[in-house]
Amino acid sequence: MQAMNKLPTIEDIRAAASRIAPYAHRTPVITCRSFDEQLGAKFFFKCENLQKAGAFKFRGACNAVFSLSDTEAAKGVVCHSSGNHAQALALVAKLRGVPAYIVMPSNAPAVKKAAVESYGGRITVCEPTLAAREIMQAKVTAETGATEVHPYNNYRVIAGAGTAALELLEQAPDLDVIMTPVGGGGLLSGTALTVSALSPRTAVIAGEPEMADDAYRSLAAGRLIPSEHPKTIADGLLTSLGTLTFPIIQKHVKQIVTASENAIIAVMKIFWERTKIIIEPSSAVPLATLWEKKLDLSGKRVGIILSGGNVDLDRLPWQK
Amino acid sequence: MQAMNKLPTIEDIRAAASRIAPYAHRTPVITCRSFDEQLGAKFFFKCENLQKAGAFKFRGACNAVFSLSDTEAAKGVVCHSSGNHAQALALVAKLRGVPAYIVMPSNAPAVKKAAVESYGGRITVCEPTLAAREIMQAKVTAETGATEVHPYNNYRVIAGAGTAALELLEQAPDLDVIMTPVGGGGLLSGTALTVSALSPRTAVIAGEPEMADDAYRSLAAGRLIPSEHPKTIADGLLTSLGTLTFPIIQKHVKQIVTASENAIIAVMKIFWERTKIIIEPSSAVPLATLWEKKLDLSGKRVGIILSGGNVDLDRLPWQK
Repeated sequence: MQAMNKLPTIEDIRAAASRIAPYAHRTPVITCRSFDEQLGAKFFFKCENLQKAGAFKFRGACNAVFSLSDTEAAKGVVCHSSGNHAQALALVAKLRGVPAYIVMPSNAPAVKKAAVESYGGRITVCEPTLAAREIMQAKVTAETGATEVHPYNNYRVIAGAGTAALELLEQAPDLDVIMTPVGGGGLLSGTALTVSALSPRTAVIAGEPEMADDAYRSLAAGRLIPSEHPKTIADGLLTSLGTLTFPIIQKHVKQIVTASENAIIAVMKIFWERTKIIIEPSSAVPLATLWEKKLDLSGKRVGIILSGGNVDLDRLPWQK
Repeated sequence: MQAMNKLPTIEDIRAAASRIAPYAHRTPVITCRSFDEQLGAKFFFKCENLQKAGAFKFRGACNAVFSLSDTEAAKGVVCHSSGNHAQALALVAKLRGVPAYIVMPSNAPAVKKAAVESYGGRITVCEPTLAAREIMQAKVTAETGATEVHPYNNYRVIAGAGTAALELLEQAPDLDVIMTPVGGGGLLSGTALTVSALSPRTAVIAGEPEMADDAYRSLAAGRLIPSEHPKTIADGLLTSLGTLTFPIIQKHVKQIVTASENAIIAVMKIFWERTKIIIEPSSAVPLATLWEKKLDLSGKRVGIILSGGNVDLDRLPWQK
């Protein structure tokens, strides 16, 4: 891959959109009158839960993998992840016809391993610590020559993530606010780059679980403060901001608002009931901040990017 | 209401489509490559689970209620039901600004009563027998002068139900087969009327639970044989065919195929996982017949009407 060492411009994000267009879904935007009435705003939900592999992660992985030269790509791609990025990378590699080496911790749920395998990913299991994951990834990389595709701390991945907002701004014009969840910050920083370039009057606001609030604390402190032992039902948001995503967020994100676990679970369930669309807990976080009145957007036109819909249906969070 | 005593023509169904257009959603049609690959057909799923009030029932109720004169409508409408028709009728009456009197058995789940109330329906509770429900409905009708809107044995309701297939034929041309589930037969007979008029080469096939297979047995016997004590997870399909729906089905439906409870539950869950769209058990029945190879539609273009998406999320059928 030609290293992409500079901040993605809107042209880079447009190039990413063209690059992934043959593979990614242009996901629909849905509205829901009962949420509008209850919260006093006009919502436009960008359904990345209906994206390939069930999450926005496909966009970043697709942009990164299809930016590789044929020679680089032939050696494969590698990441350590137990979540949506692993599935996305495995599927994208399959589409390009190259191997995906996925390092997964030994405690990753069987359902997640099965999903990666269903896309043809080659799993290497390691001890469930960050150090073990990084060592194993380095080992796989050394053996195969595969290119690492980091789930968020990678400018091509960020540019790919920014294409969701590109579509949303076309599908729902004149938004006052766009909200995303924030974990590692790939979706949030990509969204912020797109929105600041194309619709600077639109405020970008993130929702974050109270129980994994490193972005909130980092923004307040003006320096990266990673979460230690975060624990939240929003399993896509356990990671902390990265060195590439944090500065973008500092510059372009207006506010980060946290949500309680109870509100996340309640909103997720109500969303399923009212829209008949499955979202994972992470996707419920922005709406949860409004639900518990930590943020008031009455009278505003609000776009919310639903980050994903991958849920273990045998273990739903509202089950006793 | 001007009594509609004759079989609906395609003009009646088109008139119903115009009548309900200001209120009903034109629901999307989705595709799913993994079902196509696994079952060897090309599927087009008509998402009536995303219809107002979460089911196709809105179409029939809407056509019936908006066919009433102002004088008739002012006295309200009445039905006995604990399911999707009750919710649909309550919502339609609210839209017309008239009362809906819903007779519900005392054992109806609280979640269903709450749904009817949320649409402004006025609930009268009775003993959980068919006789008690009919007596209570007659009592309410006598007291209020409300017009009965039967959930399926009503030509205006049938014509309204037939508007879903009208849209599907536009959204997915050249279908070889259209499948619906069958309970009382409103959706199936309305679909059959539309399809036989507009696309006679398209076969109409229904899926029915083995455990509530009165339509299968009635068609085989050439006479109405109601189910006695049917018991199926597909709670929308517990009712038996009616005197108006049966002759239409006899004339225009090619085949009725039954599905096991296990297949219905398995397909429902897989559908949620793959599409991220919530369907209720009844909606899974047509696909379940293919899943367990009771019907082979390889190489065909198959439209399937997903009848509804109202599910009690605290009691999912795959939970132990």
